Amino acid sequence: MPEPWYNAGRWVLASCRRDYDRNVTSQRPAPYKLGIVGAGQIARMTHQAAVKLGITPRLLAEEHDDAAALAAPHAVFSHPDALSAFADTCEIITFEHERIDLGLLERLEDDGMVLRPGIKTIRVAFDKMHQRRVLLNRGLPVPPFTEVRGPDDILDFASVYGWPMVIKSVRAGAPGERGAWIVESESEALKVLSEQGNRQLMVEGFQAIVKELVVLVVRRPSGSARCYPITEVIHADGVCKEIRAPASIGHRVATEARELALRLADDFDAVGVLAVELFLTTDGLVINELAARPHNAGHITIEGTPTSQFENHVRAILDLPLGPTWATAPAIVTMNVIGGFDRIDPTDHLAEALTVEGVQVHLYGKQPWPGRKLGHVTAMGDDLEQARDLARRAEAALNGRRAW
Amino acid sequence: MPEPWYNAGRWVLASCRRDYDRNVTSQRPAPYKLGIVGAGQIARMTHQAAVKLGITPRLLAEEHDDAAALAAPHAVFSHPDALSAFADTCEIITFEHERIDLGLLERLEDDGMVLRPGIKTIRVAFDKMHQRRVLLNRGLPVPPFTEVRGPDDILDFASVYGWPMVIKSVRAGAPGERGAWIVESESEALKVLSEQGNRQLMVEGFQAIVKELVVLVVRRPSGSARCYPITEVIHADGVCKEIRAPASIGHRVATEARELALRLADDFDAVGVLAVELFLTTDGLVINELAARPHNAGHITIEGTPTSQFENHVRAILDLPLGPTWATAPAIVTMNVIGGFDRIDPTDHLAEALTVEGVQVHLYGKQPWPGRKLGHVTAMGDDLEQARDLARRAEAALNGRRAW
Repeated sequence: MPEPWYNAGRWVLASCRRDYDRNVTSQRPAPYKLGIVGAGQIARMTHQAAVKLGITPRLLAEEHDDAAALAAPHAVFSHPDALSAFADTCEIITFEHERIDLGLLERLEDDGMVLRPGIKTIRVAFDKMHQRRVLLNRGLPVPPFTEVRGPDDILDFASVYGWPMVIKSVRAGAPGERGAWIVESESEALKVLSEQGNRQLMVEGFQAIVKELVVLVVRRPSGSARCYPITEVIHADGVCKEIRAPASIGHRVATEARELALRLADDFDAVGVLAVELFLTTDGLVINELAARPHNAGHITIEGTPTSQFENHVRAILDLPLGPTWATAPAIVTMNVIGGFDRIDPTDHLAEALTVEGVQVHLYGKQPWPGRKLGHVTAMGDDLEQARDLARRAEAALNGRRAW
Repeated sequence: MPEPWYNAGRWVLASCRRDYDRNVTSQRPAPYKLGIVGAGQIARMTHQAAVKLGITPRLLAEEHDDAAALAAPHAVFSHPDALSAFADTCEIITFEHERIDLGLLERLEDDGMVLRPGIKTIRVAFDKMHQRRVLLNRGLPVPPFTEVRGPDDILDFASVYGWPMVIKSVRAGAPGERGAWIVESESEALKVLSEQGNRQLMVEGFQAIVKELVVLVVRRPSGSARCYPITEVIHADGVCKEIRAPASIGHRVATEARELALRLADDFDAVGVLAVELFLTTDGLVINELAARPHNAGHITIEGTPTSQFENHVRAILDLPLGPTWATAPAIVTMNVIGGFDRIDPTDHLAEALTVEGVQVHLYGKQPWPGRKLGHVTAMGDDLEQARDLARRAEAALNGRRAW
């Protein structure tokens, strides 16, 4: 019965519009006309956190089945570059991805649009080459790197730092699009270069990684900031599989990581969540990447802390007081549910997963594609082994496997 | 700029439709085409819980600014009696209120529609006169009561049970519409009778209430059921102001209350949440009312237990395994945010409320009207005093008062 639904839709939209108009005429504070650029799972969970606080953000989606667009009433479907028209209907804009033209964002901020984070943070977070340079300028620990304008840059870099090296895209690609390649030789490097010729690339020295850590800082415009428990992330096949809190690191490294993250948030005037990805190498901490938005590693904060990264991001960008960020259990483990080549739909296996007592299951409503993040599960425990065991069983169940 | 939004709306709706069609063609299990009748704050929080599990329910809303309709993409606006057309687009239906014609629901179930709870539970929950009769038939503790067809019924009841007595509406009214009156004399009773002449009424004996308790049971179609920690509810001016868990009652009373609630859920084939409202009187427990849906007293379960009443309601009606229901803190207190005559908008006072460290603030996005439930706050503590103090401060802040 398409017609009744369509008619209903006219009402919905008319009602939405009135609601926003009402806000304007009743002089509600400006920051509550909130727009989120992007409509993936990060936006989906940010939207949920905002709704809890009585705020319904608008979303700039790209695809009709974007995870957040499936669950939110105010979604506009358009290319991210159509941001100006979207921004006209909002009074504050935040971002769930980095695929936006920087020049466009600069013009928006110049025109008086409130971007949170602002353009200074955005430039650092969105452009990995610029990011590396500003970190190096501040004497912070980064891998050796250089811009790639042609094969000569790679060969010269190899002559100093040797193989393997990491080729990276300077700007984020589409969801699921690969952005980094570990190459062992000249021929492998040139292959990547020719295949990715249309993207701006950089290389960096391969790091002897002991652990990968993520430190989440949330910061208000005034500068007050809080740090979440440091997480350890486990990758497989280039995808983040598992997130553990607390990270199994010593007190000294933890303090150093926290201080570094808080300093970076201050240095770049971050507002909202700043995710600092770190490598713990045999030579100490090295900064891998910064992301100026709620981060995949922070899914652990939904049940693992009193205030999720999503809620604190919303609070921070609206300049509201931040909530507590301590861990609510001795050990918390999140496992991502990644689509396989069998295209199993985890929704079909909810019943099996929910038999794992006490595991929190989050599904994003996405169609199952190989390599796509379809959901995550979080388990708490008295120690990491207990939490991991629960999370592993639920994740396996959602993917149609048995793990017990 | 109304036009772009309107156009965008066509896409949204088209996309929703496709999504549902996809589910049909890909043979997704039936229960995931879920419809919720009603779109108030209960539906809003049920919707959030379903979205977490990857399911986007459709809502049958009444008003364009219904709390859930503001936060959900699939809302149809119509009178509840237009339920048949709504039901055609769903495969399972649940309810957030009791204002629906029972005959219509009977016909829907006869036609093969899956109602959860089913018509047996609905009849008990929606019709308070029928509820009292079936409880009495089972020898369960209920106040003395009788149907009111005219003044004689009230006078005869008074000649046996004396004054005061409670006059009640047999069926639920609109949100905010009063449904019970304590009357002290014949003239007061006749006044209510003449004012409420168009409603079906009953009277019951006034109870010497020591405490008001609510026991929430959640039950799957197969009969497996779980009980939440018993809550104590505090009313003022006929509105629930405060919910405390655990209730300050002895072990014997708690056991009796739990067993009673589980028995009722079994007796009436409840599916989803059954809320059993009890009076603890000097003569023991008396059943006040049953509600076959997530309950206001259960807001405490969002942060106070590992699986909220909303998520367990969704799990139960989809026949999925239930999650744990134990208390996550020694003491949990929820205070409702009720609109005052000053029509203060709690959204305007978020900043003050969020300074109360660790309190969870939930706002429903509603326009502030006197007596309207606009949100709630929940605080955990090592004891009830600590939790109450935090909740009280946040609630006062949201209503523009200072409480510290």
